[in-house]
Amino acid sequence: MQTKTRETTLRAEKVIARCRSLARLSEDAGSTRRTFLSPPMHDCHREITSWIAPLGAEVKIDDAGNLRGYYAGADSSAPRLLLGSHLDTVPNAGAFDGVLGVVLAVALIEALQGERLPFGIEVVGFSEEEGVRFGTPFIGSRALIGRIDKELLDRQDFRGIAVREAIEDFGLNPRQLARAGIGHDVLGYVEFHIEQGQVLETMHRPLGVVETIAGQSRRELLFRGRANHAGTTAMHLRHDALAGAAEWITAVETEARQIPGLVATVGKIDAKPGATNVIAGEARLTLDVRHGLDEVRTRAVHELMRAADEIAKRRGLSVESNILLNQHAVAMDNFLTHEIERAIRSAGCEPHRMVSGAGHDAMILAEKVPSAMIFLRTPGGISHDPAESVSVEDVAKALECGLHLLDQLAASPTFSKRTHRA
Amino acid sequence: MQTKTRETTLRAEKVIARCRSLARLSEDAGSTRRTFLSPPMHDCHREITSWIAPLGAEVKIDDAGNLRGYYAGADSSAPRLLLGSHLDTVPNAGAFDGVLGVVLAVALIEALQGERLPFGIEVVGFSEEEGVRFGTPFIGSRALIGRIDKELLDRQDFRGIAVREAIEDFGLNPRQLARAGIGHDVLGYVEFHIEQGQVLETMHRPLGVVETIAGQSRRELLFRGRANHAGTTAMHLRHDALAGAAEWITAVETEARQIPGLVATVGKIDAKPGATNVIAGEARLTLDVRHGLDEVRTRAVHELMRAADEIAKRRGLSVESNILLNQHAVAMDNFLTHEIERAIRSAGCEPHRMVSGAGHDAMILAEKVPSAMIFLRTPGGISHDPAESVSVEDVAKALECGLHLLDQLAASPTFSKRTHRA
Repeated sequence: MQTKTRETTLRAEKVIARCRSLARLSEDAGSTRRTFLSPPMHDCHREITSWIAPLGAEVKIDDAGNLRGYYAGADSSAPRLLLGSHLDTVPNAGAFDGVLGVVLAVALIEALQGERLPFGIEVVGFSEEEGVRFGTPFIGSRALIGRIDKELLDRQDFRGIAVREAIEDFGLNPRQLARAGIGHDVLGYVEFHIEQGQVLETMHRPLGVVETIAGQSRRELLFRGRANHAGTTAMHLRHDALAGAAEWITAVETEARQIPGLVATVGKIDAKPGATNVIAGEARLTLDVRHGLDEVRTRAVHELMRAADEIAKRRGLSVESNILLNQHAVAMDNFLTHEIERAIRSAGCEPHRMVSGAGHDAMILAEKVPSAMIFLRTPGGISHDPAESVSVEDVAKALECGLHLLDQLAASPTFSKRTHRA
Repeated sequence: MQTKTRETTLRAEKVIARCRSLARLSEDAGSTRRTFLSPPMHDCHREITSWIAPLGAEVKIDDAGNLRGYYAGADSSAPRLLLGSHLDTVPNAGAFDGVLGVVLAVALIEALQGERLPFGIEVVGFSEEEGVRFGTPFIGSRALIGRIDKELLDRQDFRGIAVREAIEDFGLNPRQLARAGIGHDVLGYVEFHIEQGQVLETMHRPLGVVETIAGQSRRELLFRGRANHAGTTAMHLRHDALAGAAEWITAVETEARQIPGLVATVGKIDAKPGATNVIAGEARLTLDVRHGLDEVRTRAVHELMRAADEIAKRRGLSVESNILLNQHAVAMDNFLTHEIERAIRSAGCEPHRMVSGAGHDAMILAEKVPSAMIFLRTPGGISHDPAESVSVEDVAKALECGLHLLDQLAASPTFSKRTHRA
């Protein structure tokens, strides 16, 4: 047992070292930025291939730029389980968001030490999840479920390069994207990811299991009043759009605090004309509301829009809003979630069932295959920042959990017989 | 009396027509923008000269670009009264802000029909009041009181042209700026200007007399919290800089509403990183506070800074502020203000003593000579906009008031004997 613990710790340290080494493959000097099909993604693919090929896996890059490393099962016709996460990053990123899930998948195969299971394992390193380069997230996972359309292929980055050109420039073929799609032999998808919040830290638990990925409503609001002279316009004669927007921001916060599990954020604001000595005639701002239950989220958004109307009316302003995103909540697979809970317990931890406030590739895959997620505790909840981290102990627990999960699934009389919903 | 009324109405219509004709002398096609020493300012000077020279006034452009039209008194050694306002405009300006005061001064001389008073009248069309081109206002009036220093002359516009170069490019000599300064023969300065607010309109009064130009405090505040994921950060774990700023904006408005005569404005805001799905880690905003009494303004600013500290502390944010402007209130001359009140009454109107929330050239001149201002009612309070207007009736009342004022001052046993404070 002592030896096994030491071995797991060493594997965990190696996982962290590998994540940190990948963080150096960047478009920017001195910080990590690795967007969809950017030059350093070639190096990233090469590096991961050099780790996984010697373990007996076949590696290819599909035409959406996803790394696909297939470690066959005991039987060459065995179905496969997908394990992975994304390899792209935000600008000025940390070393673990996405990457950790791929490196952990490689480490799990390594820990099998050549053992073959009743199912194959396909490590997937998604090419795009963050939406940085083209403003649209999940390009990698959408390719796996056949959800890439012409509109997306025509979308351009800030240099005017379309998605289809970016694919060609990377040496791939956008006309053969369909070949990236998954077949009927996929049993499910399991993703390890850092939590990026402080729920697990607050509860002193290393691992959580996601039962739902929260639905999201995003809106843009525009309060209109009347721009006027800040010195000559008495307070009671003003129609100050920014003062109205400020009152509403406070209302958003108050509402969200009253509803358990709800998060609501105004992250972006612009006031016009935007001068020190001019009363704002316009204030444009965004709203982001999330909850695991669609009806709670929808009701909250409705209530906040009503509050905006009431504030605008009382102040002699107008307000209009338009919908930027309306993403329903996505439930993770019950069977896999239950098995993950068991595996976390077998690793000596108390699992926490939780809602993911962030969107993930598992949300996309869930449309076609049973999908599940395991969250790792994130120190300080810090993510999308060079200070992002994970502890060796927590990564070791994730490895243990992963191995228990593979054991359980291998031992399951029904798992390898399941077929997906596609 | 009927004839006189008709004559005044015709003069008022002419004043308005002249203001509108000057509005066509612009740097921009289709809208009015005439900044400090811009090419259309030559045309503007030429046009006004063509109106005033035939009345027996000597016109020159001083080395700060101010138009100076001198209509001598009965005695060539008589002291002089300055009458005027500014000729520069903001971008997308109306036709009356500033210009009206100069055109009214010309109309008053015209109405004298050659009559000479115990004092001369110098019409001043200031070259710069709005601060658009160099970010520093009052360049024209500062030249008259000798307050132009090297730092100001070196200041550059967005093209990299310094004030001293702009003066040379206009055909003037920046080394002879001192010659623009006023001498001991100046009895005072009287300025007609549109109110740019709705106080007179609300009171149904055409004319007001300014007793004080409000002091101004301008600050920039920076709330700092922690940027974080909008989906994964629970409400009670946030340090949302924008939510803190919003609470403070509401506090600013509430405070200002409680203090008679106080105006306080947040007109500019920026949240960072400024993404829909990221909690703001920084919010930068401005504060503009004005009141006729310095102690009321200072107390209010102090109270608002205290509120910012309290809000920041309660929310786990930091807040810092820096001073952008600290301009004390400037009292207008008692004697002139009293005479203006009388003149407004003689014109058949009820005068309203008021505080000017906006800064004006009279605020600068007041440092050296007795200064006073007459406000004209501004429909809808609309200014700095092409919809800016004045009514013929109100301009007629301003002309009547101006003529009564000249009569009163001419009849005053002491006025022509006063010497200024310089």
